Amino acid sequence: MKLATLRTPGLGTGRTVAVRQDEDAYVEVTGYADLGTLLAVPGWQEIAAKADGARHPIEGADLAPVVPTPSKVLCVGLNYASHIKEMGRDLPAYPTLFAKFAETLTGPYDEIELPAADHAIDWEAELVVVIGKQARRVPEAEAGEYIAGYTAANDISMRSYQFRTKEWLQGKMWERSTPVGPVMVTPEELDRDAAITTDVDGNRMQMGSIGDLVFTPEHLVSYISEIITLNPGDLILTGTTGGVGRARTPEVYLTDGQTVTVSVEGIGELRNVARAQAELPAVLPAGVVLPENAAADTGA
Amino acid sequence: MKLATLRTPGLGTGRTVAVRQDEDAYVEVTGYADLGTLLAVPGWQEIAAKADGARHPIEGADLAPVVPTPSKVLCVGLNYASHIKEMGRDLPAYPTLFAKFAETLTGPYDEIELPAADHAIDWEAELVVVIGKQARRVPEAEAGEYIAGYTAANDISMRSYQFRTKEWLQGKMWERSTPVGPVMVTPEELDRDAAITTDVDGNRMQMGSIGDLVFTPEHLVSYISEIITLNPGDLILTGTTGGVGRARTPEVYLTDGQTVTVSVEGIGELRNVARAQAELPAVLPAGVVLPENAAADTGA
Repeated sequence: MKLATLRTPGLGTGRTVAVRQDEDAYVEVTGYADLGTLLAVPGWQEIAAKADGARHPIEGADLAPVVPTPSKVLCVGLNYASHIKEMGRDLPAYPTLFAKFAETLTGPYDEIELPAADHAIDWEAELVVVIGKQARRVPEAEAGEYIAGYTAANDISMRSYQFRTKEWLQGKMWERSTPVGPVMVTPEELDRDAAITTDVDGNRMQMGSIGDLVFTPEHLVSYISEIITLNPGDLILTGTTGGVGRARTPEVYLTDGQTVTVSVEGIGELRNVARAQAELPAVLPAGVVLPENAAADTGA
Repeated sequence: MKLATLRTPGLGTGRTVAVRQDEDAYVEVTGYADLGTLLAVPGWQEIAAKADGARHPIEGADLAPVVPTPSKVLCVGLNYASHIKEMGRDLPAYPTLFAKFAETLTGPYDEIELPAADHAIDWEAELVVVIGKQARRVPEAEAGEYIAGYTAANDISMRSYQFRTKEWLQGKMWERSTPVGPVMVTPEELDRDAAITTDVDGNRMQMGSIGDLVFTPEHLVSYISEIITLNPGDLILTGTTGGVGRARTPEVYLTDGQTVTVSVEGIGELRNVARAQAELPAVLPAGVVLPENAAADTGA
């Protein structure tokens, strides 16, 4: 089963609804504003499977982040052997964890802003674990029961900010910078050796297999739940594989107008156009009054 | 004005209400379940000032984290000159940022669990900025308008987990480990040279002045809001001063039954008793069935 969160302009600005993806349509799971709300209800699998609400064409659908407002987004750094080696590090004994926030997430087909403050914006294709049941101090052998399914993310990273200090957070939490989706697949639909790729304007940049993960989804759920309660809809971004722009010689980063595509086999594609932030002059000449849409007009 | 969030058993388990602290009572701001809900309403200052709801004695009051469920908790490492020096580092060009989550917070008088998995549990007295108005890309000169007030936190740190990897998050996000409160004071009530202290069982461990901050509250609001939208009720823990247990020779950490008290002049005290996690045997002898409250009985 494939589930998602659909933006529905007919329902008013900012309104969304949980949907099941059938072969020919997204079918509304009526009464649930998004997938996170649905996952919080015991028996969500049956509710989703039986849903028979309004149908929306798949072509051109405007999807929101698969879970728009998770209570927590945990991320793992350095979890693919190939990426660990390209960043010049040894295989780790423990997962490296950092955070994102709900405001950091964006839809699978939304534009991504390249902020004027950082010109080293990089891609990171990632498999994402979606939590389906409240989990605290769960043994690894039981952790699978707490996983609702899997989705994909592009852990867009502002590298200048990321390495301003030793803590990566400030390069990882930029507003609407992390596409998540397009759908969550339930666990039986995910091949544990699925391919994971990134393309920039059609050029293959990353190509790996989720079978290369050093810390498995089950290990991560167990490890994190020792520390803090995981709630339904919480996301764990499991790290990226080799081929990021920062590890290339010379380094390669996203530029205005490029399309970055992340794909996880069996889940689908995130396709996002990078747009440079419009820059206003810091000080306007005396007497100049900008029209309301000036920010959009200045280009960059 | 001093505001807080009061747990009210009369209203049912887990129920809270926003309150104003008068000289002789906490006065309910009727209709607002907690301070975060109140701060989300434009004109909250006037609503709070005029509140005339039920009155509760200050003595023995059960306070919740001053904002129980902020959308974001940002934390600053290395922000007092004295603490930076004791950790052996140079003064920074940029603030070091890391995260906590709502589940990490606990009330100003709650017990703190010392997890069995980490035996190096440390204190960090901190001044906390409470956001009062949605803020994105706010210049430092205007940042004060977005600050609702100030509170205190004890950024309890599980040092073994914190230093398992280069990213501190896993030592900083333990469930209900960070007391926040007791009240939020509005900005005019805070002396910008207020004393900040930690005592453990009455022994002074930290003693500093918030005037020693390298990055001011206004600078932090401006810096963070360049990256992500700050929402009403969001918290910024501004870092700690010298005297943490890890920087002592030999290192000193909290033990079962100790009381750790953090105080910020003009805001009040956090008083928390440390309790070792009850440890159950990993495998029970055949035939043994534990009573429901066994975890609490085993001690540690």
